[in-house]
This record gives sequence, structure tokens and C-alpha cells, in this order.
Amino acid sequence: MKPQIKRTLSNFFFEYETPRKVLVRNKRVAVVCRIIQMGVLAYIIGWVFMYERGYHAIDIAIGSIFTKMKGVSFTNISGKERIWDAADFVFPEQGDSSFVVMTNYIATVGQKQDKCPELPDGKNKNKCMSDENCDEGKYKRTGNGHMTGRCISNTSTCEIYSWCPVEDDRQIPDPPILLTAENYTLFIKNSITFRQFNVVRSNLVESVNQSYINTCLYHPKTDPLCPIFRLGDIVERSGFNFSEIARVGGAIGVLIDWDCNLDLSIRHCKPKYEFYGLYGTAKNDKEEKPSLGYNFRYAKYYVENGVEKRTLMKVFGVRIDIIVHGRAGKFDIIPTLTAIGSGVGIFGVATVVCDLLLLYFVPERDFYKNMKFKHTEIPEEVSVFIFFK
Amino acid sequence: MKPQIKRTLSNFFFEYETPRKVLVRNKRVAVVCRIIQMGVLAYIIGWVFMYERGYHAIDIAIGSIFTKMKGVSFTNISGKERIWDAADFVFPEQGDSSFVVMTNYIATVGQKQDKCPELPDGKNKNKCMSDENCDEGKYKRTGNGHMTGRCISNTSTCEIYSWCPVEDDRQIPDPPILLTAENYTLFIKNSITFRQFNVVRSNLVESVNQSYINTCLYHPKTDPLCPIFRLGDIVERSGFNFSEIARVGGAIGVLIDWDCNLDLSIRHCKPKYEFYGLYGTAKNDKEEKPSLGYNFRYAKYYVENGVEKRTLMKVFGVRIDIIVHGRAGKFDIIPTLTAIGSGVGIFGVATVVCDLLLLYFVPERDFYKNMKFKHTEIPEEVSVFIFFK
Amino acid sequence: MKPQIKRTLSNFFFEYETPRKVLVRNKRVAVVCRIIQMGVLAYIIGWVFMYERGYHAIDIAIGSIFTKMKGVSFTNISGKERIWDAADFVFPEQGDSSFVVMTNYIATVGQKQDKCPELPDGKNKNKCMSDENCDEGKYKRTGNGHMTGRCISNTSTCEIYSWCPVEDDRQIPDPPILLTAENYTLFIKNSITFRQFNVVRSNLVESVNQSYINTCLYHPKTDPLCPIFRLGDIVERSGFNFSEIARVGGAIGVLIDWDCNLDLSIRHCKPKYEFYGLYGTAKNDKEEKPSLGYNFRYAKYYVENGVEKRTLMKVFGVRIDIIVHGRAGKFDIIPTLTAIGSGVGIFGVATVVCDLLLLYFVPERDFYKNMKFKHTEIPEEVSVFIFFK
Repeated sequence: MKPQIKRTLSNFFFEYETPRKVLVRNKRVAVVCRIIQMGVLAYIIGWVFMYERGYHAIDIAIGSIFTKMKGVSFTNISGKERIWDAADFVFPEQGDSSFVVMTNYIATVGQKQDKCPELPDGKNKNKCMSDENCDEGKYKRTGNGHMTGRCISNTSTCEIYSWCPVEDDRQIPDPPILLTAENYTLFIKNSITFRQFNVVRSNLVESVNQSYINTCLYHPKTDPLCPIFRLGDIVERSGFNFSEIARVGGAIGVLIDWDCNLDLSIRHCKPKYEFYGLYGTAKNDKEEKPSLGYNFRYAKYYVENGVEKRTLMKVFGVRIDIIVHGRAGKFDIIPTLTAIGSGVGIFGVATVVCDLLLLYFVPERDFYKNMKFKHTEIPEEVSVFIFFK
Repeated sequence: MKPQIKRTLSNFFFEYETPRKVLVRNKRVAVVCRIIQMGVLAYIIGWVFMYERGYHAIDIAIGSIFTKMKGVSFTNISGKERIWDAADFVFPEQGDSSFVVMTNYIATVGQKQDKCPELPDGKNKNKCMSDENCDEGKYKRTGNGHMTGRCISNTSTCEIYSWCPVEDDRQIPDPPILLTAENYTLFIKNSITFRQFNVVRSNLVESVNQSYINTCLYHPKTDPLCPIFRLGDIVERSGFNFSEIARVGGAIGVLIDWDCNLDLSIRHCKPKYEFYGLYGTAKNDKEEKPSLGYNFRYAKYYVENGVEKRTLMKVFGVRIDIIVHGRAGKFDIIPTLTAIGSGVGIFGVATVVCDLLLLYFVPERDFYKNMKFKHTEIPEEVSVFIFFK
Repeated sequence: MKPQIKRTLSNFFFEYETPRKVLVRNKRVAVVCRIIQMGVLAYIIGWVFMYERGYHAIDIAIGSIFTKMKGVSFTNISGKERIWDAADFVFPEQGDSSFVVMTNYIATVGQKQDKCPELPDGKNKNKCMSDENCDEGKYKRTGNGHMTGRCISNTSTCEIYSWCPVEDDRQIPDPPILLTAENYTLFIKNSITFRQFNVVRSNLVESVNQSYINTCLYHPKTDPLCPIFRLGDIVERSGFNFSEIARVGGAIGVLIDWDCNLDLSIRHCKPKYEFYGLYGTAKNDKEEKPSLGYNFRYAKYYVENGVEKRTLMKVFGVRIDIIVHGRAGKFDIIPTLTAIGSGVGIFGVATVVCDLLLLYFVPERDFYKNMKFKHTEIPEEVSVFIFFK
């Protein structure tokens, strides 16, 4: 038994098997075949390697964003002057990646817990004729409080227990109260980490130094790396009309796109800013729909003469969602081998196509079939037919 | 030299090489082999192409979410009536994708900076026997303030400098104070962007118009596209019990799932809503554990007679995390070729298996070996043995 | 015609084709070839299967995070004692995955809408010589309000309409006011869901029970699963210096990394915590730059004698961004087949390399060429040349 194992092992290590091939001298088939093979090769080299960089190991960034709005607005509503600064108009205040800049509002000052008539809406939903229309202790989906059971004849609406007086939001201020929000500036600080490659990068790249930040303003052509953006520019670049958005509110996405080739110097790894509209009104759409715009309510609570009161603000504003897309590639042997392997797989497709051509569509197909194939039949009797012997 | 290059080139372009094959007439091997090959083919066509749509280029959506809670709760605590609306019970207020709806609370009104005894907890952690137990200027991990060094005999706890009086959260209100939160409604507006395909889509799809939104309520069977959800339904569908969750708090995930085939009309690209529990209490679990439930504290500050005071709220509530999963596919030549290529690779596996069968497990294996292989030996001496010559 | 179809079908099903091969007895080529093939095999088995677990179907987790800070700080600023608890120093309050812990602040108490001189900054930007330098109704990018048109000789700055008095943030308190923030603790609750495998998992794994949570503190070596972190530890482990970060603010990323092999027991699916710095100051950098640090402003509003006032806080703090990376694998037949398929593809590369060697770099290459290739020429005349006939 031993010599046999030895022979098998020696055969395995010292013998090399390679497929036998037929060289077919047929111009039509050969040219078609070479063209297909070159197409596959061009695809593998051009697309997989050059364009998609198939030899790259890819890492997706973990990003962190810090934002800061700057700006001041001055309003004069029926003689009452007021100044608004960032602490007044940004929600939430702590510099999140998603925040709202107030551009318009309906303020209801001095609400307290009390009984008062419900707001008459135009569509007769809250209307009542007599006390029977007002179920005590119930509340309506569109209502502001619990009904006490009385119908107030003055307003033809039910009396409710609520924060009184009830907010009247039937008319949105037009033009928006804080239209000068257009000139506010947004400073974005973005840090990304490619853990796999141990690379940390900030959007304040080499060319963005302190003196540049103090004066620059983002412009896609002239200042594509300046991290300071004018709010009006952001809205206009996203395809919306600022005064419309400012009136009823809207949402804008800001995408910070990093596509880094770490085979090159890290200096070439730079962010690209893109803006797109998420929710907003078309320019000619003046009708108020609940599914359009962006608004929310918040309350500032205070105590006056021992009574808890609140100022309810219905805030219309521009919501900014900042999203980071970071992707870095670096040469790595594993994806290179995988790309070559699947490339060889596609080469196999070319061979299959050429063989089909050769064996079924060429006039001399029978001749080629005999060249390519050797038949073995009735091997039980070891009667072998070898064609072209 | 020149004619040789010419010949090589002409050989390359006009000659086509194809592997020589043996046709083996062996039913057992052939049938097994064809079955394997058909299995591979079925897998490639059925799974890769039909089910996984391997011919699709894939894009992952960038999503943006805007939420709005509506509802009113009425409470009557020892004769003190109070109404709660969305500005009172939603945190944060600005319509984020992750927010908390207050369902229960412990309010500590009128706290001010002062000295007062620490809260006696049941587990004797804060207990003191004499002043020696209270290190001046230190604070305990479970404590509420800095110890002044005195032990108060009344409560048997250390005196602390803190916001006084100290919050007493040993007893959670049961039933929860705002149990009617069950009837609040949540409106979700979701916009997704597939940048690669330049497609923007909202969850207010074609069939969801204004009049439908005004009246509909989400139901997985009858109204699967209505973007308005009852809070109680969300909690129950996630597998939790509303009254338990309302008492100690909990967290629910809402997943908006988009799986779009952009080869079809965009109208078929619709969201699917799913609900699942994240943190919460089992139905029979009445014991208060710190790792269960969801609560946080916040303070409303005010100035009374020149003294800064605050109302501390320990809020128990339902946290809703809304997550968007968007994925769109569209026919593209590159992934199609890649899928075919890796399919051909798997075909190669079939060939390997069949060859193993033929050469090692069939009685006539030696005959087939000789058919398949041609031996070349001692080529150094160019003494060639060709079997079956 | 019928018998022909029958024969074709029977041929297809009962005939099996396998490539004819040459067995080359050439030690050099064979050994090189076997080494390459074994390398490929080792790569496929070792890397693709063992290391990358190519036989795994992968799912990415949906994670949800709930955080809770605990701790108390005591400050004594010019005799005014004050205690700070979590409701005072965490923004936002509701336990988000991204939040800021205040460590330093500049408070401007009792601001009201009024006229007052602009703050003189060191760089003469706000300086004015006469009223002409102050354009009425305009505001400067670095300014705090609308200019009234007067130049105040006292401060040599323009008078502005603003929240007065204007915040003076030229000097950041050093050492930071809330340096004891170092001892605050952060409790992280993290739940992840692998939808594809229907697995839900919490960072409070089996070994983390109630009594352990009550006493433990995270340490990478001794307590790697304790979900309670000391703020000072987080900052130091991220590579920053706590007192520097506390003074001007900074941002830290906390990564919760789940890499689960669901073929094993679910008990082995455990989180790993990592910390890294996002924005912050180097240890020797004492210079104040606007692009360093982390700060934001917020206002506490109140009404005093009928006048709306606010306390403006410029907050410096540590921002914590908690990110979940969850990835689970489970054996699945589809990725297994795909991995094998691409492995066979790479095997093809080995064959190509060996053939190149055999046909171009071995002295007996012409002999092997003739063994491997069969020539067919001028098939139009069916004059066939078979070498080595």
C-alpha cells in the first residue's frame, strides 16, 4: 500500500494538469470572440478597477455634526420693538444636526388654565347651536380642550376647559415676521472618523484657516469649502422660494458628501455640500394645507401673582437636516483578488458565448464539434470510437 | 523579426481557442451532473435574478421625518383641574423623529436653593445615626446634593445643600395620571430621497389626499397608508400593555420600510409601517427596577420675589423612535453582469463535483481517466507517451 | 424530425462533457502551480470562510439608545452658593443619544429688550469714532443687535437695540466652574434589533443584573460590560484632557460595537464600548480659536414686574454622541454558495498564471504547446493538421 500512496503524492505534487484546447483558425468566430473578450476586459479594467475602484477596501465614516446659527432680527409689531437673537429663534439650542430656525410665529401671550369658548373655525366643525351639541367631558379631535357642556352664543362654539384664551391660528402672518432670517448664517463643524483606516478628518480642511472662516461665505464655485452658509442661499439652492418657506415653514436637507481615496494624500479628502428640498410649498401655492409647511408649538411657562401662565408660540420655520455621507477607499489585497475572481467569472461568459457561436451558427460547425469533442460510448465494453483518428 | 510579430498578431486575432472536451455516455454520471447543473441554474435564475433581483442597482434612501402629536388630557388632582395639550406633554417640541410623550409624572413645585434633609430611601442607603455619618462637602452617588455635615434626627438622613424640598419619587402614581394619552394621535410626515436615481417620495402617496388625512386612522388591514396613528394602537401593536408602559415609561420603535422597484411605476413605491418594543415592562411585572421603564427629569425655572425657583418634573413617558429604511432598485447593466459572472463561477463548482464523481466513484473510472487525461512524461528527453494512441 | 429531437434530448441528459486535460510531468511548473493553488485555497478557506465568515448572512442592527446622567455639582461664586443637578446641566433633558453636559458657562442675568452699547472686542471690529460709523438699522455679522446710529464715547462702540446688557464672553472662566462634572456618571441603555433574524438584544446582558448595576463602574479590563461610565473616564479614554475640554467644550464619540455570531449562543453577543475624540483642544493649546471647543447659548425667560426678561447662558460643555454599530451573522446557504462561486473564480486565476508559466517561461514550452493545443486550419478545405500525430 505504501508505494501507492507515495506515487499518488508524487503525482499530485509533480504533475500539473492543464486543459487541452483546439486552436480554431476561423476569422469570423475568432474576431467576434476577441471583441467580446476585449469588451469584458475593458469592463473589468475600466469599470471595476478604474471607475469603481474594485481594488479598494471601503469604510463608511462615523460622522459628528455641530451647528451654530448667528444673526439678529428686529421686529416692530404695532409699535412694540423687539430683537431676536440665536437663543430666541433656534430649536433645539444645543447645536444639533437637525434643528429649526423660526421665521414666522403666532404668539398667544398669558394663557392660563380656565374656561373659554372654542375657536370658531371656518368649516363649522366647532359650531354649536345649543348646549346639546357640547358633550360635557368629551373633546374633539380638532378641539383645544375638554367641553364643559355649555354653548356660548357669542361665538356659536362650545365652552371648553383649556389654556385660555385659545390660540387663534386661522391667519398666518404674511409677510413672515422674521423675513430677515434670510441673512442668518449657519456654521457647520463636521468631523468624520474612518475607524478601519484610523483616519479622522474635519470639514475645516487645510485651506480653511481661522482668518478665512472669519470672512468667508459658502459659494459652490468660489468658496466650496467655506463652512459658513447664508440661510437664504441654502433655501434657494434647495429649489424653494425663501419668502414662501419662511411664511409656512419647510424642511431642507444638507448633505455633506465625503468620497475619499486614501491612496492619495489625505489633503485631497474634502467635503462636498449639497442641498435639497424635503417639504415645502411650490411658488404659486398660496392655499394652506395641513400636509404642507413645517410648524410646531412650544410654551414658555411663568408664574404671575401665584398663577401659572404660559406664552404659547406656534412656530413656523425652516428645518435643516444635516446628513453626512462618508466613504473612503484604500488599496487592499482582498477586494483586489475578489474583483479579479469575479472578472475571470465573467470571462467564462465570453467563452460560453463564443462556443455557442462556433458550435451552432458557423457553417463548418460539424467539423468543429468533432475537433472539440471526443466521444466515449458503451464504455462497459471498452469499445472506443475516437473520431479523426 | 517583423514577419514574426505579424504572424503572432494574426494568430491572436484570427485564431480562437476552445477547450477540448470528452463526451461521456454514462447515464448515472450524466443524470447526476445535469441535476446539479439545473439546480445551479434554477438558483441563479430563481434566487439571484427573480427573488433578490440581482440585475438591480441598489440605492439606500436619505430620509427625513417630521412628527406632530395631537390630543388633550384633563386631570383633576385633589380638586386642582388642569388641561394638558401637545405643548405640555411632548419633548422635544420641534417635531423630531425621536420624542417622548409624557404619560405620568411626579412634580416637585417651588424648589429653591436651600438646606434640607435628604430623602429617606427604603434601603437605608441615606440613613445616618449621627453627624459623623455625613461628610461635609461630599455627595453620595444616590444623593441629591452636597452634605452639610449635620444629621437630621427627624428623618434620620443627612442634611444637604440642594434644590429643596427634595423630590420624593418613591411612589409612582398608579394609575398613570395621563392615561388618556392613549387617544393622542401622531401624524408622521416622511420624505425619502434616492439620490442615485433622482427620485423623491413622500409617505403622503397618491391615494392619501387632504380629505383622507382629515378623517383616517392607521390600521394595518383597512388603512395601511394613513399617516395618522393612535398612541394606544402603536403601543399595543409593539407587544406592550399600554397602562403598564404609561405608568413607568417605555420605548417603541416605529419602522417605515420602503422597498421600491423603480422598474415599475413610482406609484407602487409605498411605505410599510412596523412597530416593535424597545424597552418596557412585561404585563405581570409590577416591581420597579431602574433598568426598566423610561423616565427623565426636567425643570421649569421661574423667579418669585427675586428668588430663582424651579418646578422639577420627573416625567415617565412613551418614547417613540421613528426609523426609515429605504431601498430602491432599478435595472442596471453592471450588477447584471456581476450576477451572471458569479453565476458562471458557481457553475464551475458543478463541473468540479461531476468530475470528482466521474473519476473516483464510477466503476469505469480508469477508462474515463484515460479519456480525460493525456500524459506527458520525462519531457527533458522528449520521450512522449501518448496513451490511447 | 421526431427521432432527431429524441436523440438530442437523450444526448443532453445521458451525455456528460468534461474537459480533456494534459498531465504535465514537470516538477518546476507543477510545484509552482500547486503552491499557487494552495495559496488560493488557504485564502478561500482561511480568509473568506474562517475570518470573514463568508458563509454568513449578515444583518445590520436597528439600535435605540436611552441615556441618563447622574451627579451633583456645588459652586460658590463670590459667596453665592449654588447646587447643580442633572436637570440643570444636561441638554436636551429627555435622554437622547446625543447630548451636552455643561461644564462651564457665562451667565448674563436679567437681560431685557433695551438700548445699550455694543461690547468692545479686542480686535477693534466694533469700535466707532463718531455716529457716522454706526449705520442706523444695520447690524454687523459679529454684532449683537441693530445699531441705533449713536456712538457711545464711554466704550467707543455703537449703541445697539438688543437684549441688554450685552453678554461679555471675552473671558472664559478658568478653571471651569463645574470642574466636578468629572465625577458625573452616565448610564447607557441600548437595545438592538436584528429584524432579519428576529433577535432583540439589550446591553444589559445576562451577567449585568440589578445589584451589579447599582455598584459597578465601566472599566475596559475589569468591568467591560458595566453600562455606567464616569464622565472623566470617557474624556480621558478618548485622548483628551478633561480640564481643557471642560473649559472650552469638546465632543466625544462613544461607539457601542456589536459583532454577533448567531450560530453560537445568543449569550456571546455582547457589546464593546469605544471612545474617541471628535472636537477638542490639544493639551498645550491655550489659545482660544472659534473653530475649537463646543459652546451654545440658551435663554431662560421670565417675567418681572410685567417686563419679559431672560437669563442668557453661554454653555461650554462635553457633547457625547453615542453611536451603535450592530452586525450579526448566521449561516445561510446563499452566501455560502456565493463565496464558493467567487472562490472557484479565483481558482481560475491560478490556472491562468500556471498556463502562462508553462507556455512561455519553461524551456520545453514548444513541446507543451503542442500537447495542449490542437490546430485546425483552412477548415473550408477540411485539410486538417494534427501535430504529433
